[in-house]
Amino acid sequence: MNQPHDPLKALGYHSVIRLPVQWGDQDAFGHVNNTVSIRWFESSRIAYFEHSGINPLLAAAGLGPILAAVRCDYRRQVRYPDTSWIGAKITKLGNTSLTMAHAVWSERQDAVSAEGDSVIVMFDYAANAPRSIPDDVRAAIRAFEQGAV
Amino acid sequence: MNQPHDPLKALGYHSVIRLPVQWGDQDAFGHVNNTVSIRWFESSRIAYFEHSGINPLLAAAGLGPILAAVRCDYRRQVRYPDTSWIGAKITKLGNTSLTMAHAVWSERQDAVSAEGDSVIVMFDYAANAPRSIPDDVRAAIRAFEQGAV
Amino acid sequence: MNQPHDPLKALGYHSVIRLPVQWGDQDAFGHVNNTVSIRWFESSRIAYFEHSGINPLLAAAGLGPILAAVRCDYRRQVRYPDTSWIGAKITKLGNTSLTMAHAVWSERQDAVSAEGDSVIVMFDYAANAPRSIPDDVRAAIRAFEQGAV
Amino acid sequence: MNQPHDPLKALGYHSVIRLPVQWGDQDAFGHVNNTVSIRWFESSRIAYFEHSGINPLLAAAGLGPILAAVRCDYRRQVRYPDTSWIGAKITKLGNTSLTMAHAVWSERQDAVSAEGDSVIVMFDYAANAPRSIPDDVRAAIRAFEQGAV
Repeated sequence: MNQPHDPLKALGYHSVIRLPVQWGDQDAFGHVNNTVSIRWFESSRIAYFEHSGINPLLAAAGLGPILAAVRCDYRRQVRYPDTSWIGAKITKLGNTSLTMAHAVWSERQDAVSAEGDSVIVMFDYAANAPRSIPDDVRAAIRAFEQGAV
Repeated sequence: MNQPHDPLKALGYHSVIRLPVQWGDQDAFGHVNNTVSIRWFESSRIAYFEHSGINPLLAAAGLGPILAAVRCDYRRQVRYPDTSWIGAKITKLGNTSLTMAHAVWSERQDAVSAEGDSVIVMFDYAANAPRSIPDDVRAAIRAFEQGAV
Repeated sequence: MNQPHDPLKALGYHSVIRLPVQWGDQDAFGHVNNTVSIRWFESSRIAYFEHSGINPLLAAAGLGPILAAVRCDYRRQVRYPDTSWIGAKITKLGNTSLTMAHAVWSERQDAVSAEGDSVIVMFDYAANAPRSIPDDVRAAIRAFEQGAV
Repeated sequence: MNQPHDPLKALGYHSVIRLPVQWGDQDAFGHVNNTVSIRWFESSRIAYFEHSGINPLLAAAGLGPILAAVRCDYRRQVRYPDTSWIGAKITKLGNTSLTMAHAVWSERQDAVSAEGDSVIVMFDYAANAPRSIPDDVRAAIRAFEQGAV
């Protein structure tokens, strides 16, 4: 039997998290507020950094991620009760920045409810300046993405 | 003397709101969380609909706005205490959708801290379907934007 | 082997939900913000109404719950990553109101991180007025609480 | 003419802040969500520490506040658009903790919409332990409260 995260795996998302929709995520329109998807994207960014094993490499380099941009396309209205599965994959590796795609799967609707991406800059918080993505971080991301980036 | 919303007016934003940064808007990085800018965009969308006078026209047509997409570029880290001024202007009128640009001005930094836009669809919530933007709504938006759209 | 919700069951909480801590739940102190526990209490109130089977009874009576008061004692700082288990039990049945106790269990710390209670009034939203708790609702709550209230 | 914060001053609140209600503060019941009042209490705690001048004294002592408990009584449903004025006053000085009362004034309803209090512990974050409230902090609070505590 299919698991709810299988469709996201089939779309190439190797990092997937599961978050229950809370009643209070809904706004006066009676559906999940648009800011909640952005919070889910954030949680999926954090999880990707853990799942891909790059956190210790970044720590060793004295770097941390900083969000430069986010974009979200809202595909379906989501309502409580539901469970969201959120996938993350890196689709582009630049010099100091990378692009991460996100997709939210609604378990109840069995469909993608939102899609988007984040632009993340590798940042030296001590120096308050962007830095090139270290080679070992690039290698770890490419391995995690199985060569798709 | 310049008022903090003057720079936004100069950038063509005719609808401007003022929102204080709350301490709790900050996350574990010690700066305002990325989802807060998205909330500010939402508040500026709502305010635009009020300032431009299109709410009664939409109500008469049985329509409401629904958010199809949002995009945000984060320009500067914002910290408490500060006050944000958020401008909104409509930059594109499509058939069933319109694009609204947003800019957030940090009073403390005297600079744009975030920019982005929203794609808003005119929606018949009763029929659960998009509708063409009514002519009187278009006219009111063009008047409010002084012909810039 | 013990399941994380067993300690809450042992404390008499028959309704228990599980919610992952999100990174963004943390504030500038680097721990989960105090408002998040209040959101967890809300989610546990909603779940209690589902688990106890009283929602259809309230709907039939034209009533809904409204929150009159909430109280929370913060026992331990919670940090990401962690999973919270939140228990709810009704501890007092008044005429128009009831008191529900909540406890949050930190899976990572294996301890109660927050405790509190909510006062909920049975409300006729159409008439904008409180109403006596219907007899069938009382009976269902007493059955769910196994006579403990 | 009365200013909206005058009623709070009359109730003995010497520290008052003003926060606009945002549309997104509302939940699926169409009124401001209960967690928002708790966020307003937090903002009024932070403001009190600034207004009373005790922040530099606490910093010199290596101490910071930590929230031990919060309680809120919801008096009226609040809806967008509205402006909240939130007052804070210290009503009890213990050894390591103090109690701060909060009241939220709805500008639109010209009435208290929520009341409550916070128990705040003086905390040595480095030692992870509570500490007695320093004498100069006590004196500053008593001066700010004009001897009422």
